[in-house]
Amino acid sequence: MAPGSSNEKKTDDGQASKENFIHLCNPHLEKMKEDILYHFALGTGTHDFPTLFGDVKFVCVGGSPSRMKAFIAYIAEELGLGSPGCDYPNICAGTDRYAMYKVGPVLSVSHGMGIPSISIMLHELIKLLYHAKCSDITIIRIGTSGGIGLEPGSVVITRQSVDATFKPQLEQVVLGKTVIRSTNLDEQLAKELMQCSREIGQFNTVIGNTMCTLDFYEGQGRLDGAICLYDEEEKLQYLKNAYESGVRNIEMESSVFAAMCNLSGVKAAVVCVTLLNRLEGDQITSSHDVLVEYQQRPQKSCSQEIGDNISNKEIKTRSLQ
Amino acid sequence: MAPGSSNEKKTDDGQASKENFIHLCNPHLEKMKEDILYHFALGTGTHDFPTLFGDVKFVCVGGSPSRMKAFIAYIAEELGLGSPGCDYPNICAGTDRYAMYKVGPVLSVSHGMGIPSISIMLHELIKLLYHAKCSDITIIRIGTSGGIGLEPGSVVITRQSVDATFKPQLEQVVLGKTVIRSTNLDEQLAKELMQCSREIGQFNTVIGNTMCTLDFYEGQGRLDGAICLYDEEEKLQYLKNAYESGVRNIEMESSVFAAMCNLSGVKAAVVCVTLLNRLEGDQITSSHDVLVEYQQRPQKSCSQEIGDNISNKEIKTRSLQ
Repeated sequence: MAPGSSNEKKTDDGQASKENFIHLCNPHLEKMKEDILYHFALGTGTHDFPTLFGDVKFVCVGGSPSRMKAFIAYIAEELGLGSPGCDYPNICAGTDRYAMYKVGPVLSVSHGMGIPSISIMLHELIKLLYHAKCSDITIIRIGTSGGIGLEPGSVVITRQSVDATFKPQLEQVVLGKTVIRSTNLDEQLAKELMQCSREIGQFNTVIGNTMCTLDFYEGQGRLDGAICLYDEEEKLQYLKNAYESGVRNIEMESSVFAAMCNLSGVKAAVVCVTLLNRLEGDQITSSHDVLVEYQQRPQKSCSQEIGDNISNKEIKTRSLQ
Repeated sequence: MAPGSSNEKKTDDGQASKENFIHLCNPHLEKMKEDILYHFALGTGTHDFPTLFGDVKFVCVGGSPSRMKAFIAYIAEELGLGSPGCDYPNICAGTDRYAMYKVGPVLSVSHGMGIPSISIMLHELIKLLYHAKCSDITIIRIGTSGGIGLEPGSVVITRQSVDATFKPQLEQVVLGKTVIRSTNLDEQLAKELMQCSREIGQFNTVIGNTMCTLDFYEGQGRLDGAICLYDEEEKLQYLKNAYESGVRNIEMESSVFAAMCNLSGVKAAVVCVTLLNRLEGDQITSSHDVLVEYQQRPQKSCSQEIGDNISNKEIKTRSLQ
């Protein structure tokens, strides 16, 4: 698939550096005078994107708006960028479709549940980063999932996102025709995130395949939805087949996330905590407090990765001076 | 597919009445001691569903939580059930996945964007209505959409929900295998809603097919997404083909909404306002105030329908006394 476009650029000290800009796979956008990002309630005619977002290097996305708000406060403190108790305004306050927060080079955006919901958000996010002339962007999805064969609370870093038949691809319908897209993710970034989790040393973390489904109940073989026309044996056989093919967790956004980041030349990773072991049940029965703690685990790995990278860049900048 | 289950029941005056209860297509649920509706933060072990929801007759659903909050205040006033300025608490305050409000026999629930998001909500909503022993339920989706060949602000009442190839069906993947489901909606209810819109007489309303897609940009032939690999001519040809097949608007939830209501034996309708005419553009450029007024239109038709039905039932009850 199309890689991200790269530009050679001279730095102040005359050294050549390679910047990866967003690769926009749409020739029509160049002709538009104004671009309204409707579901963000932002637009190039009303907002100065390079000033607002030009310094962004890391984008963290997750389903729940309140979790993404909590994350921005957490990462601000971790990176020493915010003051305790500081309130971060919702940049998308003009809509309730998504919520967006920023501190320094980190943007935190909610995406709702399911492929269509994250896909709308990613179309507008990728355009936002393009209009803002951002470069060298890393996007990490920090989410929740159902685990297979793992102790609840384990974190899965996605090697490949696979569909409900365990194929590493996304089928999309464009103008009524089926298009198949690759769902590869950045191997190096996955390894770095694994290393971060090891350094934190507080929870079990594995690299494995993630199955991305269009439904939470029937689509994931649950027995507790309003509709279920199969039995427990068929369910368990399906989940065991998934496990044998390398699947370690199931969620509902990773395939289109991988496909769109691939096409736009953006480094991407998916880090999800497992809320339960699907071989042992379907209902999420852990207490609120336990679930809140679980949900902080991907945030910790992600924050460590961002911290390492920012420090590395600062050290590199200093060594050039 | 399975129709709703009906029970003959004697009324106080000895007349036989036929009540339509929720038809739960899942034999496993009977065996569960407790049912946690995780995405509503409600459960049968912690909440008394028959007391909280037993009187519900109408459920209105829409994408945006704030719109569904505004709707409950509006319908309360229209039905003379609330006091002006009264605040309606969010029944799902324990989560930010969905929002739910209630006044008298009306429940108002948000569902986010896209088939997976509304499908999770509907699984839990149908179980909620079942556990609450509700009967004679009508569910109406009041939403927004892109119109084809209609003046912006027109309202479309869905005759059939069709997929991106204009077929009246929903393809789902269950245990890795494709299942096809019917997307029929209640004809009589659609006609009644059309009559309500005529009586209101404030905006153009049509009955037509609604195309339900998995994506807002490429999936609906837009030229303004982050990815677009076709030209304007191909886009317009696709939209014209849709129009010729009877499609009058495009949205992202109706097919699974119709399929799940069908299977559960619940009367259902989809009423969406069109925010733009897709034959003339892709971007939603109307002002905030115009869009807010547009979004009230399906609420008005729906409120009129609920008002008519409640009045009819009250009149019938009185005439029997």
